[in-house]
Amino acid sequence: MSNKSGKGALFYAQSGGVTAVINASACGVIETCRRHGIQVYAGRNGILGALREELIDVSKEDRAAIAALRHTPGGAFGSCRFKLKSIEADRARYERLIEVCRAHDIRYFLYNGGNDSADTSLKISKLSAELGYDLKVVGVPKTVDNDLPATDSCPGFGSVAKYTAVSIAEASLDVESMSESSTKVFVMEVMGRHAGWIAAAAGLAAEGKDAPPHVILFPEVPFEQDQFLARVKEVVAKVGYCSVIVSEGVKTPDGKFLTDSGVVDAFGHAQLGGGAAPIVAGLVKDKLGYKIHWAVPDYLQRSARHIASKVDLDQAYAVGKAAVEYALAGKNAVMPVIKRVSSKPFKWKIEAAPITKIANIEKKLPANFITKDGFHITAAARTYFEPLIRGEAAPPYDATTGLPKYVRLKRVLLKKKLPKYEIADK
Amino acid sequence: MSNKSGKGALFYAQSGGVTAVINASACGVIETCRRHGIQVYAGRNGILGALREELIDVSKEDRAAIAALRHTPGGAFGSCRFKLKSIEADRARYERLIEVCRAHDIRYFLYNGGNDSADTSLKISKLSAELGYDLKVVGVPKTVDNDLPATDSCPGFGSVAKYTAVSIAEASLDVESMSESSTKVFVMEVMGRHAGWIAAAAGLAAEGKDAPPHVILFPEVPFEQDQFLARVKEVVAKVGYCSVIVSEGVKTPDGKFLTDSGVVDAFGHAQLGGGAAPIVAGLVKDKLGYKIHWAVPDYLQRSARHIASKVDLDQAYAVGKAAVEYALAGKNAVMPVIKRVSSKPFKWKIEAAPITKIANIEKKLPANFITKDGFHITAAARTYFEPLIRGEAAPPYDATTGLPKYVRLKRVLLKKKLPKYEIADK
Repeated sequence: MSNKSGKGALFYAQSGGVTAVINASACGVIETCRRHGIQVYAGRNGILGALREELIDVSKEDRAAIAALRHTPGGAFGSCRFKLKSIEADRARYERLIEVCRAHDIRYFLYNGGNDSADTSLKISKLSAELGYDLKVVGVPKTVDNDLPATDSCPGFGSVAKYTAVSIAEASLDVESMSESSTKVFVMEVMGRHAGWIAAAAGLAAEGKDAPPHVILFPEVPFEQDQFLARVKEVVAKVGYCSVIVSEGVKTPDGKFLTDSGVVDAFGHAQLGGGAAPIVAGLVKDKLGYKIHWAVPDYLQRSARHIASKVDLDQAYAVGKAAVEYALAGKNAVMPVIKRVSSKPFKWKIEAAPITKIANIEKKLPANFITKDGFHITAAARTYFEPLIRGEAAPPYDATTGLPKYVRLKRVLLKKKLPKYEIADK
Repeated sequence: MSNKSGKGALFYAQSGGVTAVINASACGVIETCRRHGIQVYAGRNGILGALREELIDVSKEDRAAIAALRHTPGGAFGSCRFKLKSIEADRARYERLIEVCRAHDIRYFLYNGGNDSADTSLKISKLSAELGYDLKVVGVPKTVDNDLPATDSCPGFGSVAKYTAVSIAEASLDVESMSESSTKVFVMEVMGRHAGWIAAAAGLAAEGKDAPPHVILFPEVPFEQDQFLARVKEVVAKVGYCSVIVSEGVKTPDGKFLTDSGVVDAFGHAQLGGGAAPIVAGLVKDKLGYKIHWAVPDYLQRSARHIASKVDLDQAYAVGKAAVEYALAGKNAVMPVIKRVSSKPFKWKIEAAPITKIANIEKKLPANFITKDGFHITAAARTYFEPLIRGEAAPPYDATTGLPKYVRLKRVLLKKKLPKYEIADK
């Protein structure tokens, strides 16, 4: 049975770690499809839903609920960490995906994720061509890690950046006011296992001389204990206190994660998803004797829709919208990316990039974004980051509960047409 | 030399841990003084400034800067942790305070803090009477701990409560969407060394059946490991994931802080100002095998002016304003407190309470706020807490930097009139 519109349906799935604005991309996808009369089926828990034929019938969600996705964090349809291997190794699964598409007349396949998802999209596109099934595969960029190539920034990143810069500015005001008799050194950990994009963005808070954060520890710069401690001591002597940002991915000079290094005895449970901040803070306490405090916001930073960046939100919506338009226009194996036209004034546009240019490539923090001493960001970094945290986009709040009005979708599944499918080794 | 107005000057100091809205109280104090033509001298770093005769001349700050205190977190004049002992033990210091007041014709002494500050206020009031120096001493309530008696709530608390409830709601949406293939249990630590006020307020996020947070660990309820693990397992089985709030003050059945208990080997650095969350998360991982994540927002929670509660902000301003009015009306050894007139609709007013009813008394979380199983809040708790996080009061943001426009005062010191004074054993 063919899709009502006669144009085929569109499949949309969220992949990997979610963000404060990935649902805004979903909103862009769905609202654009509705304008074009295209059915949307969303994968329940991402690609797992596609494999199991657990397809959420988005037509069952009302207009207001879809609009509310724009201001709701998390992944409204569910996401997953599940990487398909090469076509050779995982051929049965790729074929299953095509089979599910065929069963529901899905002609557009939109996959909202990072590097891995781009890789998967590419393979689905290849196999559908090989099998002679006409499917337009389009990626939708997303990752707080900001490490996708070909795009100026990644939707999700600007909001974490804003959260992080605002948080360290606020906490530092607190520490500063108490520093004579209380905490002298405050250490805040940020996400970024492989690259210091978020750590660098925290540096935006340092407006003016001696403003916090005073020290940033990047994964790109080997952690030299003595140099770090000397800098902290110097800052405390001069400013009265010291605010430190540490990336979870900071490594010792021998290339081990600080959380695995044993720098501070019997701490550092890397698998606990945090621990660089208590290690660094413990070191300051032990070696310099200062009263310290540390914070690990963890998921709070990537889900903080209440302090999302308006620019990030607009870009997240725009890539969702563009992905649909590209698919309907017949583009295949592409991803809408953000092209910066100018920084001052900040102007951007969306353009299509071939997925081959994105899959499995990690964009590194440019070397010229880090100051020579390795402890802060340069003016070039500031020019890049600043526009990304610009603008506010507060969610609506309930006047009685005082809480944001986040939406929960009904997530009604389509009736299955295929036999049951078990995912063996997920 | 007497004060310009001929009415005597007013001294204002911030004490103890600062909050997102203590500067709003300062704003209330200063704007009210300006309306009455009263000079304000603020203690640099709290009572330390009074002892050292380091008095900030507030008349040097312009109107816009004072207005901006309303939306700036931290303590704009500096605060401190410095407790004066009994009059007998610390008589020289109390006399020094009176001497400083006398030198600058300070006739009103406003001290913005918690239990300890109320105690100090009381003693200053007693000694000034004994020495025949006419000084009106008025407390201004403040503490994120919400543990002052005689007041419905404490300015500063409502904003931490809002931050905490919003944060756990957001992070839980994130965890929920990833829970099939990633994190199953998320643990967030909140402040509250002695009482579970903040932990309880986090429960407000649990709107509706099975909504997060699913488990709250209060300092008031001894931590029974087996019962806790059984509950987590039950929630994961039913809901698919489990969100846990743990107060930093949680204790084992033998009365030790969890962070000092050795429950998880070689973790728990209590003096690091955090660690209950990684301990609880580690336990879940070890015993139940779930993938876990944990967060310790630490100072972020009490400085998060960007997500302050409007009710809290209004109350913070109102107590500052009322403190000045009480002092000018000749009231002494009192504190303006918040009286709840009704919960539905929420109505409150300010009234004067004698400081004797506040000093050194800790208000405990009522037993009927905790459910029988010890893991959540009751409807009575919800009725109490809900109005306190109501309303938003975002700070203004800079359109270019994307950051809140927080103010930094000039803090010009008055010329000293007395010989140098050293604080020996602080």
